[in-house]
Amino acid sequence: MTAADSPWLELAPGHPFGVDNLPYGVFSTPGTAPRVGVRIGDQVLDAGACAEQAGMESGEVWLTPSLNAFLAQGRQAWSAARHWLQEQLTNERRRDCVEQHLLPAESVTLHLPLEVADYVDFYASEQHATNVGRIFRPGAEPLTPNWRHLPIGYHGRAGTVVVSGTDIVRPTGQRKAPEEPAPTFGPSIRLDIEAELGFVVGDATRLGDRVAVDDAGDHLFGAVLLNDWSARDIQAWEYVPLGPFLGKSFATSVSAWVVTMDALEAARVGLPGQDPQPLPYLRGEHPPYGLDVHVEVELNGTVVSRPEYRDLYWSPAQMLAHLSVNGASVRAGDLFGSGTISGRERQTRGSLLELSWNGTEPVTLSDGATRSFLEDGDTVVLHAWAPGPGGVRIGFGEVSGTVVPAR
Amino acid sequence: MTAADSPWLELAPGHPFGVDNLPYGVFSTPGTAPRVGVRIGDQVLDAGACAEQAGMESGEVWLTPSLNAFLAQGRQAWSAARHWLQEQLTNERRRDCVEQHLLPAESVTLHLPLEVADYVDFYASEQHATNVGRIFRPGAEPLTPNWRHLPIGYHGRAGTVVVSGTDIVRPTGQRKAPEEPAPTFGPSIRLDIEAELGFVVGDATRLGDRVAVDDAGDHLFGAVLLNDWSARDIQAWEYVPLGPFLGKSFATSVSAWVVTMDALEAARVGLPGQDPQPLPYLRGEHPPYGLDVHVEVELNGTVVSRPEYRDLYWSPAQMLAHLSVNGASVRAGDLFGSGTISGRERQTRGSLLELSWNGTEPVTLSDGATRSFLEDGDTVVLHAWAPGPGGVRIGFGEVSGTVVPAR
Repeated sequence: MTAADSPWLELAPGHPFGVDNLPYGVFSTPGTAPRVGVRIGDQVLDAGACAEQAGMESGEVWLTPSLNAFLAQGRQAWSAARHWLQEQLTNERRRDCVEQHLLPAESVTLHLPLEVADYVDFYASEQHATNVGRIFRPGAEPLTPNWRHLPIGYHGRAGTVVVSGTDIVRPTGQRKAPEEPAPTFGPSIRLDIEAELGFVVGDATRLGDRVAVDDAGDHLFGAVLLNDWSARDIQAWEYVPLGPFLGKSFATSVSAWVVTMDALEAARVGLPGQDPQPLPYLRGEHPPYGLDVHVEVELNGTVVSRPEYRDLYWSPAQMLAHLSVNGASVRAGDLFGSGTISGRERQTRGSLLELSWNGTEPVTLSDGATRSFLEDGDTVVLHAWAPGPGGVRIGFGEVSGTVVPAR
Repeated sequence: MTAADSPWLELAPGHPFGVDNLPYGVFSTPGTAPRVGVRIGDQVLDAGACAEQAGMESGEVWLTPSLNAFLAQGRQAWSAARHWLQEQLTNERRRDCVEQHLLPAESVTLHLPLEVADYVDFYASEQHATNVGRIFRPGAEPLTPNWRHLPIGYHGRAGTVVVSGTDIVRPTGQRKAPEEPAPTFGPSIRLDIEAELGFVVGDATRLGDRVAVDDAGDHLFGAVLLNDWSARDIQAWEYVPLGPFLGKSFATSVSAWVVTMDALEAARVGLPGQDPQPLPYLRGEHPPYGLDVHVEVELNGTVVSRPEYRDLYWSPAQMLAHLSVNGASVRAGDLFGSGTISGRERQTRGSLLELSWNGTEPVTLSDGATRSFLEDGDTVVLHAWAPGPGGVRIGFGEVSGTVVPAR
């Protein structure tokens, strides 16, 4: 199905939010409390109201202020909902009903689409891990011995995941350069971004059970663009031995629209290759797949990087299987990030740390300004899209944030 | 006030749950859905029902299935509630009303007392960090250079925090000993405990603000006993460079009763001493304080260790100030663990890793059995108490868990 199948929606060809996409978010208007909406073209469908009018009981979960109730329902409900929505939006006989519940996208306020249960961040790009290893541990083997055996990850702070457009207050903390005798305290002087995809999980499991890699698709609802803001000076001083903490926990931004895994089916691609072969629990019956998602990193209006998600070493299903292999239960609303998306070429690196090679090769913006790390007032916007069926584009929208001075 | 002030409660002198304690939990009965209860002696007060009958509107938060709504109210409400409860339980004129809402403790089911928002685990015992450093990084300086400058911590998995009594399924995962050529997969063969206190946080802050060390008391509601179950083999292979993940995330057990910081006022003690002096944001106007909480670790009925919380290097207020110094907001229901409580003497070490010195000095139980790590069927129970006013005991109850085989 393509946008052309719904002429009455009058979508421009190649619109990133056609009927093959239908991402979910949470919106409000002055007269409507936050509830689930579906993006279609330049409009937002009040999905719950539409379902209510159509007499569809299961649409009640869309009248709540987060996606969590819908996420809890699982794969069958997600697929049924997608078919129902595509039917509503393409069947001329449903037009009158649907049109009553369409709102111009620019007229609504978008909210964080989910109540984040647990947030995990992975480290799935070989090139990113290699670059960070070279920068933070010069002279040592850049990849740790475990890197190619398991998708390395850690838990982040769920309570500071914010929706696109939220200002980012510059974090304050301790840092100490190796040559300094003692740590100093103050606003971070090496504030950075990390361009990632985040995966939204639903259909809870029981404590002690695991999600097999072949069953991961039953729990993977969709993907968001994710900016894992990072204070490199704070991180470098704190992270040995228990990992990143305050260097990351001040904010993580996600896009307002969750693109479903169903919409990303045509974007599935093979992985670049895994050597050595992973242990059986990471292999499964079906070959693992990556996603052909093209990301753009824009800093103050200049595109400074174009990371390719297909370069990632570990697949989303492998990450979820690994996350739960110890019996850790998953909940509706769990979110995991892929880790920074970086490729081999400089222009595909997903962080300023790598783009500026730790400040030694500053990035030049279109107005002639240079940046190694972020200054107050800087705005970072990530965009992304993936191929859909029949050559359409599946858009992710954007995740944006402006740095404001430390309080 | 002491338990003797309420003769009609007929508490034995020195009862760990006297009117100076009054810990909060969540209970249910066959006829009552989960709601907040207050432990008094060997009974549980249905606090919400009692408040409702007394016409106290603010008691509504106690009719909910977690402490979170009450936690959100903040310090003033917590103090007012404590005074009100002590009045109810000691004033003879309130006796008839109160007695209608007392249930025998053994007749109720206890639940996880809070919906855990974010869970952080610290590493605040110098002796524990030193022991772990010696065991995991032999030949290197046992404490990392940052250790005495900041309370090291990391985020754990909030969704796998479970209440005392929950069985612990042995986790499965990857491990690789240094001399092995490749990782192997299977149930953990080095399953361990960590005896900790956990601190329950309330009164949310705004993103970008921090909790000053002197204001931490406004957000610290109370403490629980916490067992941070740890799979040492999984942890050792995965934790470099991003910290513990699956070695910890399968389960964290907490006691069913949350002892308030008010009840622990008489247990405040000075810290062992901090050198070098911490940065100003960790100092504040008032000297930091620790807590004189005595912990007992029981393995299959044998007490194998008696850790002393007063040995910890960093104070709870310092940990909270550090956790939020970067502007990370806190939410009602946040929980942070102290890290394993270990002292200088062998019999005060809070983990089997340390007690058995990585398996080289197994612990002998009263039945002659020995343990380096936990076997299936083993039961671990932590108990704790602190001094209260006038020589009474403030009890924490227990946190228990039995290891069941991997699924």
